[in-house]
Amino acid sequence: MKNIYVLGAAGSIGLQTLEIVEKSNEELNIIGMSLGSNDVLNQSIIDRFPNVEIICLRNQKSLKTFQDKYPNIKFVFSDQGLIEIAKYPKKGIVLNALSGSAGLRPTVAAIESKKDIALANKETLVMAGDIINQLIKMYHVDLYPVDSEHSALWQTLRGEDQSDIEKLVITASGGSFRDLSREALNDVTLQQALMHPNWSMGDKITIDSATMMNKGLEVIEAHHLFGLPYQKIETIIHKESVVHGLTYFKDGTVKASLSLSDMRIPIAYALYYPKRHVYESSLELTNLSFQPMDFKRFPLLELAFYVGKQGGLLPTVMNAANEAAVKLFLKEQIKFLDIEKIVMDTVHQFENKMEPTLDEIITTDELIQNHILLTYGKR
Amino acid sequence: MKNIYVLGAAGSIGLQTLEIVEKSNEELNIIGMSLGSNDVLNQSIIDRFPNVEIICLRNQKSLKTFQDKYPNIKFVFSDQGLIEIAKYPKKGIVLNALSGSAGLRPTVAAIESKKDIALANKETLVMAGDIINQLIKMYHVDLYPVDSEHSALWQTLRGEDQSDIEKLVITASGGSFRDLSREALNDVTLQQALMHPNWSMGDKITIDSATMMNKGLEVIEAHHLFGLPYQKIETIIHKESVVHGLTYFKDGTVKASLSLSDMRIPIAYALYYPKRHVYESSLELTNLSFQPMDFKRFPLLELAFYVGKQGGLLPTVMNAANEAAVKLFLKEQIKFLDIEKIVMDTVHQFENKMEPTLDEIITTDELIQNHILLTYGKR
Repeated sequence: MKNIYVLGAAGSIGLQTLEIVEKSNEELNIIGMSLGSNDVLNQSIIDRFPNVEIICLRNQKSLKTFQDKYPNIKFVFSDQGLIEIAKYPKKGIVLNALSGSAGLRPTVAAIESKKDIALANKETLVMAGDIINQLIKMYHVDLYPVDSEHSALWQTLRGEDQSDIEKLVITASGGSFRDLSREALNDVTLQQALMHPNWSMGDKITIDSATMMNKGLEVIEAHHLFGLPYQKIETIIHKESVVHGLTYFKDGTVKASLSLSDMRIPIAYALYYPKRHVYESSLELTNLSFQPMDFKRFPLLELAFYVGKQGGLLPTVMNAANEAAVKLFLKEQIKFLDIEKIVMDTVHQFENKMEPTLDEIITTDELIQNHILLTYGKR
Repeated sequence: MKNIYVLGAAGSIGLQTLEIVEKSNEELNIIGMSLGSNDVLNQSIIDRFPNVEIICLRNQKSLKTFQDKYPNIKFVFSDQGLIEIAKYPKKGIVLNALSGSAGLRPTVAAIESKKDIALANKETLVMAGDIINQLIKMYHVDLYPVDSEHSALWQTLRGEDQSDIEKLVITASGGSFRDLSREALNDVTLQQALMHPNWSMGDKITIDSATMMNKGLEVIEAHHLFGLPYQKIETIIHKESVVHGLTYFKDGTVKASLSLSDMRIPIAYALYYPKRHVYESSLELTNLSFQPMDFKRFPLLELAFYVGKQGGLLPTVMNAANEAAVKLFLKEQIKFLDIEKIVMDTVHQFENKMEPTLDEIITTDELIQNHILLTYGKR
């Protein structure tokens, strides 16, 4: 039995993780989890996992009610509670499905507690990839990707030598507006932006797909996960979302990893790794299309390559600006194209600093996010 | 430096193998080879490889001339000469690129001499897969596929567990006549049949592609190479010949191996395995199409599945009938559709025998081939 801590259990990835654990015939076991702010959903989740030992609530409000109802479970709350879960003194793998920059500190705490990580929170590596890679080495833990693209690349590298890689190619569906010209983006609505053609995901990542910022974050994540320079990472438009990643090897071979657009596949791959667990899924091969990525159409992707190559605090700044701008767009306080503008302006105005500490990264993230929310948000 | 013996060095695969060795910066070394009946070509090949120690000529005719000219090389000839090469007492890997059933005995001799095999001669496994697999275990040698499809499948299985395989899928371009209906096949000519849309290969395999017999032989080969039942092996039409093979795993993941239609890639993969050697090759991803295989359109493929499942002498019978029929078609003594008819009639009239010996297999092959050449050939 493998113990699993799920951070962000009430989100899209989190709920699918819980489903995988339930169907695991006790091969997997939820030992800790963090929940959201919907107490009805929270209670239904708790009732499904009687073995759970520690639960983090989003805030203190309902803590006493839950604690009285479930005296055998330890309840904690807020960001500090996430750290407590990460440090909980029982072996296990931490699946980090937190949304946004909140995922960084718990990842660090989990590594320092010698727990392996299944990472669905890409901000962890975007903001602090160098630090995380140092910590992983220092504490001898493994970090497994959960993102479908990185899981696909990881699979193509099974049994392979890193030095044989010529390049990695990450596929992009193109998001909700892939068939619209830039001009047509002026008047798109939030509802339109939230309609992803292939994937059913959380709101933030759906918007990030439409701006292609998501692919930019994935490029930076891939750089840190696979230890490759940005010249060896490419993106390509692949509307069908069947091929999730391809590795070109130096001998002329290309390996691709394909699956249905179903996040349960990469989640289970990370949780069961190196084993594969039976999952009924019948991918029918039909036509697959590939088109070169158009950086002019998706300037945030080009920005991400630039920011990634620069390193230092710049990826944190880009990510923070984007996170705040998307929040404002989700509240319909700014227009779709304002996201790009805010992110680009913020990055270009920032004076970069190399080799930042973890505290500097987190402070910068907060400062940038607050600045944007105050500057562009409607009070 | 790795010693290589090339059987069939003057053929299409053989010549590409020689090219790879020449470009290997002495990492690979030709120590023995068998040549064809064109003495001008033979001499030019010999002059390129001064380190070669043993050479097999097709017949005795020019043996003395060559032996006098190259006194440091041991010259042998005919089928017995192939066996001498296979048994030559120096370590090395035998690349068997012989055409047809002539490849079987040399493979056996090489295994018995504890030499690893890079197998481009699919008849070896089609005719005697069970025997070869027993010998491989007994003599602790490795057998590597060279066929592009099997090399692709082998690559998708790198680092994987055989028990995780749900099924293997072999792609088929469809051959020269893929866009013709069965009715239109009545009057096709030899010249048309030899125009393969994607690959430049030898005549025999080009015809086998047009009849889909080649894919049938590959299915049987895959069964023996990867130790999977026929229910777990499928074929699919993929006109672009970019994806050569796919493995479906039980967890919903599919891995595909892609490359340009360039046999030097799988040849080098087998010769350098487990290393990968730099080869400039830029696969551009464009649209990839996949269509279900139509067994009614390609009855020889359906026959191959039947024959493979039956086992015993039947795969040898099918292969021999096809080999002889293709010879007659290449001499324009029968029509294209006669190939199918001859192969099907021969298989259905044969009384099968299980667990044949190697001698029985080879005798049956000769009997069937002679019978067909005598019955259907024009004297």
